[in-house]
Amino acid sequence: MEIQSYLKKCQARINTVLTKKILPASSKQPSHLHRAMRYAVLNGGKRLRSALIYATGESLGVHTATLDYLCAAIELIHAFSLIHDDLPALDNDDLRRGKPSCHIAFGEATAILAGDALQSLAFEQLAKIDGKKILPDNKIQMVNVLARAIGSLGMIGGEELDIKMVNKNITLEKLKRCYKLKTGCLLSACVLLVALAANCRKKTLLNLEKFGYSLGIAFQIHDDLIGIKSDTKTLGKQQDADAMRHKPTYPSLIGLKKAEKEEAVVFRKALVYLKKAGIKSAKLVALASYIIERNN
Amino acid sequence: MEIQSYLKKCQARINTVLTKKILPASSKQPSHLHRAMRYAVLNGGKRLRSALIYATGESLGVHTATLDYLCAAIELIHAFSLIHDDLPALDNDDLRRGKPSCHIAFGEATAILAGDALQSLAFEQLAKIDGKKILPDNKIQMVNVLARAIGSLGMIGGEELDIKMVNKNITLEKLKRCYKLKTGCLLSACVLLVALAANCRKKTLLNLEKFGYSLGIAFQIHDDLIGIKSDTKTLGKQQDADAMRHKPTYPSLIGLKKAEKEEAVVFRKALVYLKKAGIKSAKLVALASYIIERNN
Repeated sequence: MEIQSYLKKCQARINTVLTKKILPASSKQPSHLHRAMRYAVLNGGKRLRSALIYATGESLGVHTATLDYLCAAIELIHAFSLIHDDLPALDNDDLRRGKPSCHIAFGEATAILAGDALQSLAFEQLAKIDGKKILPDNKIQMVNVLARAIGSLGMIGGEELDIKMVNKNITLEKLKRCYKLKTGCLLSACVLLVALAANCRKKTLLNLEKFGYSLGIAFQIHDDLIGIKSDTKTLGKQQDADAMRHKPTYPSLIGLKKAEKEEAVVFRKALVYLKKAGIKSAKLVALASYIIERNN
Repeated sequence: MEIQSYLKKCQARINTVLTKKILPASSKQPSHLHRAMRYAVLNGGKRLRSALIYATGESLGVHTATLDYLCAAIELIHAFSLIHDDLPALDNDDLRRGKPSCHIAFGEATAILAGDALQSLAFEQLAKIDGKKILPDNKIQMVNVLARAIGSLGMIGGEELDIKMVNKNITLEKLKRCYKLKTGCLLSACVLLVALAANCRKKTLLNLEKFGYSLGIAFQIHDDLIGIKSDTKTLGKQQDADAMRHKPTYPSLIGLKKAEKEEAVVFRKALVYLKKAGIKSAKLVALASYIIERNN
């Protein structure tokens, strides 16, 4: 499992960066808030998004220090979204990766504020990038890409669609759109930010964006599948949580077999876009494959 | 009241900008989320922060289109912070400017997400500024200024201190720090962003930053004072809410008379920093005065 060892390497690197360089020390006031931020970010995530960034960056020759800041920005956003998703008013999840969710450990008020602060801390990282080799316009374009990817027409909009579909009869098309926004937009941002740092041309950017969307949809279908097939211990969260919550999923709408087929179709589409973007990276392909093979 | 008519002019301008250019249409999906965002932003706020930006910008000769985006960014952040502050887990306020708070009108989940989406929409505005006349580094520096002003060592950190001081015996020094973070940091950001757009030198930036801090503290002391002196109808929120919530305030710590004196002292300090920044603007001084004279 070569990709597993690459993932571990990326995990170790970004965890060190986040721990030592990015997150405010717990001793700094307001310390309760800073402890909550550190708890939520440093909770043993797989760092798939960081690995995606490092692999894309290596392939495009982007400076590692730049990639560190991009990974940090994305991981902070990802952690913020998980804190808010787990809140009682949203998914009401007490467990996250087998440990108490942020609001269980630190209270709801601090959890809300920790999420808020992680979002702004993410944008702060973009301002830290040494832009000497980056086209001046591209630096501010990165802010635009990240902001749009997570906004009401991106990740946060996807979360709204997600909570509104509980107990509803929806079409597969609508579920797909929700998955694109909820997960695809941030995955797109991962590769787009790297491509902007590498001063890639427009055609590459457009294809990488679509690669991210498709990979995100495949990622979410896979989440649906392992939500049924893996047990609570392996998942680090409640098995069958979606069904218990009456949330539509690919398997609930079209059955397990067709859902698996659809996952394969969307995944192949992702690889076509990656090829069209002109990026030849065995690591990236292996990472993308890992995303639809993992069991947690 | 000349400053009142200037405020009205600024209100009209930024409201039109927000309504027509910045906020996503209610008809766009997810429409419930977009309606909540528009409701929270377009709810008749005084737009003091926008007026501060326009007045500073006029004095420094910054293009009005640039100021529009800066005002939009700050008003979106301000609205986001109010939505989250009003949530049951935080201040639990059902009323905001005499109308149901966002979570009362749209539900708690959507209110949380609307706040989140407004934060990212704010950063998106900074990327829209036509930067031809702005030093390349200053554009990305604006992102840094906004992110730090609202993060865990700024506005959001101030909110955490605020909710943690309920029912506590705290020193005046701690309360002052809370007010500086909660309100001063965003007011500082207003004038700093304009100064960066005007390519001001470092000394001006440093003094403007301190002007914002002091003005913010005066603003909050004034809020404490009118929270006691104005009735519920004038305030648009519950009179004596802080006392009922056992929140320390300047008057509760040192009495009404001393609190009024302290407000005057901090306000004079603000004007000294404004002078040191080399900005001579009768409008800015009148606006700052209005902030400590308003009754709501």
